[in-house]
Amino acid sequence: MGPGPVNAHPRVLRAMSADLLGQFDPEMTAYMNQVMALYRPVFGTRNRWTFLVDGTARAAIEAALVSLIAPGDVVLIVNFGRFGLLLREICERIGAVIETVDAPWGEIVPMEAIAAAIERTGPKVVAAVHGDTSTTMAQPLAGLGALCRAAGALSYVDATATIGGMAIETDLWGVDVVTGGLQKCLGGPSGSAPITISDRAAEHIAARRHVEKGIVRDDISNGTGARIGSNYFDLAMVMDYWSEKRLNHHTEATTMLYGARECARVVLGEGLEARFERHRRAGASVVAGARAMGLTVFGDDAYRMTNVTGILIPDGVDGEAVRRRMREDFEIEIGAAFGPLQGRIWRIGAMGYNAMKHKVAITLGALEAVLRAEGFATPAGAGVDAALEAWRA
Amino acid sequence: MGPGPVNAHPRVLRAMSADLLGQFDPEMTAYMNQVMALYRPVFGTRNRWTFLVDGTARAAIEAALVSLIAPGDVVLIVNFGRFGLLLREICERIGAVIETVDAPWGEIVPMEAIAAAIERTGPKVVAAVHGDTSTTMAQPLAGLGALCRAAGALSYVDATATIGGMAIETDLWGVDVVTGGLQKCLGGPSGSAPITISDRAAEHIAARRHVEKGIVRDDISNGTGARIGSNYFDLAMVMDYWSEKRLNHHTEATTMLYGARECARVVLGEGLEARFERHRRAGASVVAGARAMGLTVFGDDAYRMTNVTGILIPDGVDGEAVRRRMREDFEIEIGAAFGPLQGRIWRIGAMGYNAMKHKVAITLGALEAVLRAEGFATPAGAGVDAALEAWRA
Repeated sequence: MGPGPVNAHPRVLRAMSADLLGQFDPEMTAYMNQVMALYRPVFGTRNRWTFLVDGTARAAIEAALVSLIAPGDVVLIVNFGRFGLLLREICERIGAVIETVDAPWGEIVPMEAIAAAIERTGPKVVAAVHGDTSTTMAQPLAGLGALCRAAGALSYVDATATIGGMAIETDLWGVDVVTGGLQKCLGGPSGSAPITISDRAAEHIAARRHVEKGIVRDDISNGTGARIGSNYFDLAMVMDYWSEKRLNHHTEATTMLYGARECARVVLGEGLEARFERHRRAGASVVAGARAMGLTVFGDDAYRMTNVTGILIPDGVDGEAVRRRMREDFEIEIGAAFGPLQGRIWRIGAMGYNAMKHKVAITLGALEAVLRAEGFATPAGAGVDAALEAWRA
Repeated sequence: MGPGPVNAHPRVLRAMSADLLGQFDPEMTAYMNQVMALYRPVFGTRNRWTFLVDGTARAAIEAALVSLIAPGDVVLIVNFGRFGLLLREICERIGAVIETVDAPWGEIVPMEAIAAAIERTGPKVVAAVHGDTSTTMAQPLAGLGALCRAAGALSYVDATATIGGMAIETDLWGVDVVTGGLQKCLGGPSGSAPITISDRAAEHIAARRHVEKGIVRDDISNGTGARIGSNYFDLAMVMDYWSEKRLNHHTEATTMLYGARECARVVLGEGLEARFERHRRAGASVVAGARAMGLTVFGDDAYRMTNVTGILIPDGVDGEAVRRRMREDFEIEIGAAFGPLQGRIWRIGAMGYNAMKHKVAITLGALEAVLRAEGFATPAGAGVDAALEAWRA
């Protein structure tokens, strides 16, 4: 019950024990095409270029940024937590000129502040995190795309922590590139990262195409843009691999693709709205339960992620001792924190297969027992009762 | 029966259906430590820094090169095929000054030529491929490390196509960094890439350490070297993640780690020498069978990889029609080729779980039937008989 990775859905685990296929076997390329189709609704998009990056969520973040940004480009980072800092850091390594618009940890960045920052800095790319698990805040993104397009900027959103749990509206937001990860609300393992790319961003990336010499083909020509700084993350070649051209770039991670495919099938089988509602109930139950136990919930109520909740560690309680006892006595993991919140909050996730009534109730019941053992008295049963009541509400 | 990805070992497939663990759960970190221990003998090394990169084999190649090389460094590439060109291309993107020592496709680069090239170019890093599946040649590497150390250069070897099938002698060769992949002779899926790093290379990399801002800790200080050009592939941070410091970098790809762990357990359970011998027999059987069928084997006999064999497509035979019929009538995949060999050879692999007597014999029997159907007559039964005889020899 941490902020990810979490338990995977049993169907996803079973899908990953299937034998491998050759990477250009028609059965394999059919699975690749299915993955593209399955992830379009998950991303809320009709983008043709919707596929997987072979690596963890941050692999897709870096692939998106290194493929969009050339050294010297001005990039505006919408920063309100650890993962905003990560975007900044990746862009620095690419050699971008960094501008930021910031909010304190526990708040979000108002869209007017973003608009003003775009006007002030004239960025080529605007990069934002949707849900930052480090602060448990979800950044509103409606209107971001229009602001960027009006300013001639491309836009990028890291939706690792929200995809499959909160609505991702790539097309409604009008953003160009969105990436995710399997290991949170999609209910799979880390190691494959879905990405979607608008046609205009794909054109920008394709203009930077430089096919590696060993696989040059007559039917694929190089572009005039700056060569992308990474081979592995060169989305121009990766798109050629996922297209009917089937350019031989990396060897697709077959087992992870099976897993990613099954994650999306489980999500769409449940239905996106039902799934988001389940996550909303789970998050509301954790919040209600924590408050009934006399605990304080961290961050701005209006912008809280539904799938992870920050809880202040009460004075006099050893946060790590609580986490250890949760794991040792109950086999339940809850999360620690980073940066300014390290040692100040726990983070309880309710993501994907873990966003279930019984799991939330069991976690709060366990937390009550552990807090009692650690010398912090809570009203017996109050957390569980409040959580169940909130779930039913 | 292509040059990878190939069928995975059933034990590896089963291992990947286990449920996930939190990334800092003591059970998970114990598995990480086991992986480090298991891969040391597989790499023929006592290197402390032996772990996994989360991505396909080329992810580990790029991680190694971007962590070793800073822009402007002179790099000498030992180039005799497509994957030598890949090393060159990755180093170009890093901004290295490229020097090469080359052999035609189908040959290897003599060690004297490498020695002369090191003397001529004064490289900071020497990079070579062990087995290049594009040409089916295996580059001898004994003595490479000593040459590099004498010249003050670090050395890198891409062993993707040989690890688990031919002897990798990291310590005997004296090379600094070696990377692999699961999807060939290790008998697993693509998506996790083992790597080993010598202490002196690890020191060089650690001197470039720049911990990202969101996870800065008092007990980990930055180095004075040039910041590594990638966050995801920053092996300084990845080593801190795999060390007892457990720096929170990426989220380890749990399922792929289970798979990588089981691959090594299967390999060591069989025994390295027995496994190499099995691959030798398999390769010799393919060669003997092909020749008995009146086909010509590609490349220098003295330096052929044991696990993949290039076979010239006879005049008048449509190579792609043969591959299609192999797949459609027999569910057997054999490989096409790249670059100057495209349309000239097929590549038949016998790797990992596929390096078995019955699979080689069945493949050659199928190929005989397919060639007959495509108008190329071979002596009936000769390929299978010669393959079985070679296996027993």
